[in-house]
Amino acid sequence: MTKPNLAPASGTRDFLPAEMQVRRRVLATVEQVFQRHGFLPLDTPAFERVETLTGKYGDEGEKLIFKILKRGEQAKTGEVDFALRYDLTVPTMRVIAGNRHLLPRIFKRYQMGPVWRADRPGRGRFREFYQCDVDIVGSPSTLADVEVLLALAAAATAVGLGAFRIKLNSRKVLKGLMEVYGVAEAIQGKVVIALDKLDKIGPEALPAELEAAGLAADAAATLARELTAGDISHLRARLAASPVGAEGLAEVDAIVAGVAPALAEGAGIAFDPLLARGLDYYTGAIFEFVAEGFGGSIAGGGRYDGLTGLFGAKPEPVCGGSLGIERILMLLQEGGAPEPIGPTAYVTVWDQAAQSAALALAGRLRAAGVSAELDLVGGGMRQQLKAASERRARYAILCGPDEQAAGTVVIKDMDAGTQVTVPLDQAVEALAGKA
Amino acid sequence: MTKPNLAPASGTRDFLPAEMQVRRRVLATVEQVFQRHGFLPLDTPAFERVETLTGKYGDEGEKLIFKILKRGEQAKTGEVDFALRYDLTVPTMRVIAGNRHLLPRIFKRYQMGPVWRADRPGRGRFREFYQCDVDIVGSPSTLADVEVLLALAAAATAVGLGAFRIKLNSRKVLKGLMEVYGVAEAIQGKVVIALDKLDKIGPEALPAELEAAGLAADAAATLARELTAGDISHLRARLAASPVGAEGLAEVDAIVAGVAPALAEGAGIAFDPLLARGLDYYTGAIFEFVAEGFGGSIAGGGRYDGLTGLFGAKPEPVCGGSLGIERILMLLQEGGAPEPIGPTAYVTVWDQAAQSAALALAGRLRAAGVSAELDLVGGGMRQQLKAASERRARYAILCGPDEQAAGTVVIKDMDAGTQVTVPLDQAVEALAGKA
Repeated sequence: MTKPNLAPASGTRDFLPAEMQVRRRVLATVEQVFQRHGFLPLDTPAFERVETLTGKYGDEGEKLIFKILKRGEQAKTGEVDFALRYDLTVPTMRVIAGNRHLLPRIFKRYQMGPVWRADRPGRGRFREFYQCDVDIVGSPSTLADVEVLLALAAAATAVGLGAFRIKLNSRKVLKGLMEVYGVAEAIQGKVVIALDKLDKIGPEALPAELEAAGLAADAAATLARELTAGDISHLRARLAASPVGAEGLAEVDAIVAGVAPALAEGAGIAFDPLLARGLDYYTGAIFEFVAEGFGGSIAGGGRYDGLTGLFGAKPEPVCGGSLGIERILMLLQEGGAPEPIGPTAYVTVWDQAAQSAALALAGRLRAAGVSAELDLVGGGMRQQLKAASERRARYAILCGPDEQAAGTVVIKDMDAGTQVTVPLDQAVEALAGKA
Repeated sequence: MTKPNLAPASGTRDFLPAEMQVRRRVLATVEQVFQRHGFLPLDTPAFERVETLTGKYGDEGEKLIFKILKRGEQAKTGEVDFALRYDLTVPTMRVIAGNRHLLPRIFKRYQMGPVWRADRPGRGRFREFYQCDVDIVGSPSTLADVEVLLALAAAATAVGLGAFRIKLNSRKVLKGLMEVYGVAEAIQGKVVIALDKLDKIGPEALPAELEAAGLAADAAATLARELTAGDISHLRARLAASPVGAEGLAEVDAIVAGVAPALAEGAGIAFDPLLARGLDYYTGAIFEFVAEGFGGSIAGGGRYDGLTGLFGAKPEPVCGGSLGIERILMLLQEGGAPEPIGPTAYVTVWDQAAQSAALALAGRLRAAGVSAELDLVGGGMRQQLKAASERRARYAILCGPDEQAAGTVVIKDMDAGTQVTVPLDQAVEALAGKA
């Protein structure tokens, strides 16, 4: 028999206990922040009918969708009927279209769960990864954009990402820019994509990039100079000449005014006229969170009014964003995952006759909210204490014949090496305070 | 354009906020109980390489596996490479085989997550459903069986299932029974399956069922009579004649003695010599939790020593069980899901000028752990209070020009209809106590 392949499917990951403890803690923190911000949970299945996903992600995205073969006789045809979700947004739009009357007028939803993309696996690029989304359906107000940004910023802060900057722009600002710089409608998309590359290519290369997008040389030079100037007051002044640009700028300013005072120390938000995030999806404000040491963004999103119409429902204003939780988890776990956190109490078992007393003690501790592991290694006390140490228990509980007779137990502090003998009741109380 | 199909894929479910709130609360409770019992989290991907799952679930099970089509050029061949996990046990055995040296000697793991089976959808039968498993690897002791049962029983009690009975048997007892009643090795499997049907067919039909399985008429009559007698003392006495039967019975008695004292009021555990749970998988103790009003079991499991050898690793003792969380959730939600639980505070926005004050107040509440929703409906106070009521907020917070000037806010109790005016600081404190 050949040795079986024990690795998970290419591009996916197993999570051993130490890593899972970190993941669950971080995800629970994010969820709690979303809930405190008034977002409600929604969940959709792992797979959708193929036609629900088809035509939603562009040609490149479509190639990355995992499709599920039909079963039974039809399996032979090679036909597919279901497909794993590629993101959480499209399924949510389907749910909203089908259940609008059951949902609040202003519907704030969060969803946290895995999505699947058949990308070529690589460092930090997985075929199964979590998304953490918040979206607000039904409000055209910039207050909704502010609320989305506050929820994402609070989540990033809560999981320990101290220093990040929020880059904010608006699709309307980009449209206004194209207008005031006289960029022809036909090449606006290409020009915006060229602008979006500035971070990668540097300011020197920008004029050439803009020319390649179709701008005349002098227009390219002017645009590049004014957009990359440290002081963007000139730009703001020029935007005033475009109604849509002025509107976008006012929205950006309102959002900055709403978000800035609420950010934790080290975090900031600023207008970035070059941020693009692709043109076809968004209709209003767009944003990205960036942090030192991160290659890409740690969160992103914007306003995409009308997307609820995707499945034939009434188009409504929507804005939302997504926290890049996998990147955050990688950052938090640099240096490798340690041993898993152990139980508060490791209840040793003196001998066969002491089993029921040990079980009763473990039961009382657990009922009091204390995580308690009962020894299953067996053998003498020395072996059991070694096992308690391996499991990183904070306290080992010993109860020999003397203690049993006296109704006491010994609590051994595994780090300090000290131990105290206390009556049984006090042991439960003492450890409950440390749970 | 034809109207798009808005339903989730056949056999799967969308979870709207009210139902999701119940699901998340119940799952969090179960997880906390598992953790308190010293189980560590493990997670595996949604899909595995096809060969990891092939040959593990029998012919009938194998037909229910969802398989994923290869991508790109290979999609045309109709070939598959991955498959959605069918349960959590087989992937866990793969992880243990590949990572044994990284895991504790006695490894207690829990895993909670969806599995997928291409069953014909029906009432209470889904193609995507959660499993909540606990398993202990490495201990042959009945204390390990006890710990598995205690964790599952505590979880069932914690989620509100008061009255349940644990039916306990052992594969060794069944083997002993076959020996002492002289059932030929060749038909033992069929006889055990016949016994397992007693609940469905009733005691009168049992002798015929046993004869159909291959027993002689008199042997069938004796076996049926002794097994269905209310008093099983005779059976216990006869089992003493079989070494394996006596061993199994001693184990069952030890497990009952360990579990019974720890059960909450209304719950019980008893030896049930007829419980079978299929023969090929288990090697020792087997159990099922049953409750009034439940058609099937709400939990089940047992000891399956050696299953860790499935992927070429050293065979080790293992015992575990699974909580039927979907059935439990259905029971808890009978009568239909209500409106989702609303935020503690609904912060109204007096007018445009009051936005930043309202945002600041919402921010302070959230930082104090209070779930706070900021009004996005807009309009007058009456409309906003209607929205607060629709969202089932416990308190609405009002802050008009007078309150702003005085540094106070009005807290309106949405149920009682009463309201008080308090200084801003006290509002945050008062509501934090109610979060």
